[in-house]
Amino acid sequence: MNFGYYMPTRVVLGRNCVTEHADLFAPLGKHALIVTGKSSAFNGALTDVMTALNAKGQEATVFDRVTPNPTIPVVREGLALLRSAGADFVVAIGGGSPMDAAKAIALLAEQDRPDEQIFAGGYAPEALPMAHIPTTAGTGSEVTPYSILTNDVRQTKTSISSPALFPRVAFLDGKYMAQLSPQVSLNTALDALSHAVESMLSRNAIPLSDTLSEEAIELIVPLLGKAQTGRMTLEERDTMLYASTLAGMAIAQSGTTAVHGMGYALTYFYGIPHGRANALLLGETLRLCEEKKVRKLPHVLAAFHAPLDGVTSLLDALIGKREEIPKEELEAFAARAMMNKNIKKSVYEPTFDEVRRIYLQSFGYDADEE
Amino acid sequence: MNFGYYMPTRVVLGRNCVTEHADLFAPLGKHALIVTGKSSAFNGALTDVMTALNAKGQEATVFDRVTPNPTIPVVREGLALLRSAGADFVVAIGGGSPMDAAKAIALLAEQDRPDEQIFAGGYAPEALPMAHIPTTAGTGSEVTPYSILTNDVRQTKTSISSPALFPRVAFLDGKYMAQLSPQVSLNTALDALSHAVESMLSRNAIPLSDTLSEEAIELIVPLLGKAQTGRMTLEERDTMLYASTLAGMAIAQSGTTAVHGMGYALTYFYGIPHGRANALLLGETLRLCEEKKVRKLPHVLAAFHAPLDGVTSLLDALIGKREEIPKEELEAFAARAMMNKNIKKSVYEPTFDEVRRIYLQSFGYDADEE
Repeated sequence: MNFGYYMPTRVVLGRNCVTEHADLFAPLGKHALIVTGKSSAFNGALTDVMTALNAKGQEATVFDRVTPNPTIPVVREGLALLRSAGADFVVAIGGGSPMDAAKAIALLAEQDRPDEQIFAGGYAPEALPMAHIPTTAGTGSEVTPYSILTNDVRQTKTSISSPALFPRVAFLDGKYMAQLSPQVSLNTALDALSHAVESMLSRNAIPLSDTLSEEAIELIVPLLGKAQTGRMTLEERDTMLYASTLAGMAIAQSGTTAVHGMGYALTYFYGIPHGRANALLLGETLRLCEEKKVRKLPHVLAAFHAPLDGVTSLLDALIGKREEIPKEELEAFAARAMMNKNIKKSVYEPTFDEVRRIYLQSFGYDADEE
Repeated sequence: MNFGYYMPTRVVLGRNCVTEHADLFAPLGKHALIVTGKSSAFNGALTDVMTALNAKGQEATVFDRVTPNPTIPVVREGLALLRSAGADFVVAIGGGSPMDAAKAIALLAEQDRPDEQIFAGGYAPEALPMAHIPTTAGTGSEVTPYSILTNDVRQTKTSISSPALFPRVAFLDGKYMAQLSPQVSLNTALDALSHAVESMLSRNAIPLSDTLSEEAIELIVPLLGKAQTGRMTLEERDTMLYASTLAGMAIAQSGTTAVHGMGYALTYFYGIPHGRANALLLGETLRLCEEKKVRKLPHVLAAFHAPLDGVTSLLDALIGKREEIPKEELEAFAARAMMNKNIKKSVYEPTFDEVRRIYLQSFGYDADEE
């Protein structure tokens, strides 16, 4: 055994935990920049945060212009607002996009650097204090040291990784997901599922990340059908949110692998939602693991309580009709994916031919045909 | 679901992790007070810490006068040395006693108070930075917010609990346990096992502490026989150490329960080693849980892969000959244990009669006889 484990975020879960634990905002600072998208005004999270901040006499400025798959210009805009408002901490409300944008804003507020060096790494462990409030159950960003942004130079999504990016506090309350559409409920659940599976298939998996991932898979799988219909009780929303946080704690240690590395192109070029993009590629990736006799695969399947064909059938049923993408586009994505660092993190590192095959077979092509 | 989770300690596990991760000491300070007992000079841990500190030009002063079940005067002596040496961080090497003494020293260094108020609570979340290096696999103190000291006023052991008591770093290396006696190997393993079981039977258990506890039990049980003989490979030492840390992470959330609450008297008045004291009382406590149909008990037994009788037989075999303690002494302990706050944390809170019965039956008396 040889590993490191670190996850310093305080996690609070429960109905109305934002307002009931308003005291947890107090040590973060005097003036919050609230980073969010447009929907937070409707799910109740923004109101709760305002109530909590007001209760302790903290000021707030809202930056609600975060778009899906946020770009560096969006981060710059948030950072400028933070500075002009004099904010000294950051509260993120939303799915992965606001949470990841908030992390980049909090990091650059302490360690600004030119746009072209943002993905260069080497950050000191310092960022403005952050509190994260997920409003989807998928990304796990509330407990990871990653901020994943659109990288227009390299035409993909790229992660910044630094211990500075762990939020101080994560507030988990399934009530903010009560109005999520079936599509978003399912796609985000598939993202969480993919995190848990990929973590187990990562070179950097550790015994504790496996334990967290197995528990996440056990909790997520029975709820996927309900996510697909969007008909989930608040308690089921809590469970899914808890499971997505467990999966986040797992990838906080191990990182993601080939599935994420391949999925980014589907999102960047075809706008396929991130969780769905992963799910589209997961089945064929698991088949490759079986072919290569990956030692961890039986443990993954045990957590699903299903054989490989059962898992791929489940994914097929959840995915439904697959997008039509020209074969030559998919081949170009394969070449592009080989440059993604996540590919190398897979416990079995796929070759170019295998990555190409996963892309093609995932979209109904025969990989052997010319 | 409704819970909080917090465990900010960075955990590093692996052969020679102290020297290989010497850089993790650097941010802690300029001058370490190394808090330890007499044995650390022989297991190699002190040499490794000195090497790591020297590599980064950090100074060190050694306080090696910590005795088992440390008292407040011992803590005071360490604190005085820390101040006279000008140390600005603390490194603990040892079993629970040096680790818990180190925590109290680091806390009082920042927030001193009169002896009689040390157990009064209400500490601010501030202590000198700490690194902990366990040299037994049992206490889990390296990942808990507790310092458990001998409380001579109340004639028991009492815990200080504060988030300030989480060490910054825990270094786990099974090689420091290579020379442990069979007795210490077993007694400390029984302490870890008791933590995992008690955490699951705590009112304050959360889903994540259950997951950690189940994994800890699964890992510890197959190694107990080897611990009893003291013949463990270094890899088995690593596994036991990892499991004891998992159990520590669990009780960091849930706290311990009736078994610890009852066990302290056996240690205070009869000098029975802490882990053994818990094991002596664990079987009868589990029998009470069965009688009271405690919902969690089947999950505990599932982690043992044994029915209740199998678990109690295993404990009997490991414990061997039980100490002879007069019946009236045990009855006095029962009265005393009822004042311990851990009793109230049990998911089934035993009555005085039940606590009395556990004590008496654990030492071979018929509880119904007058």
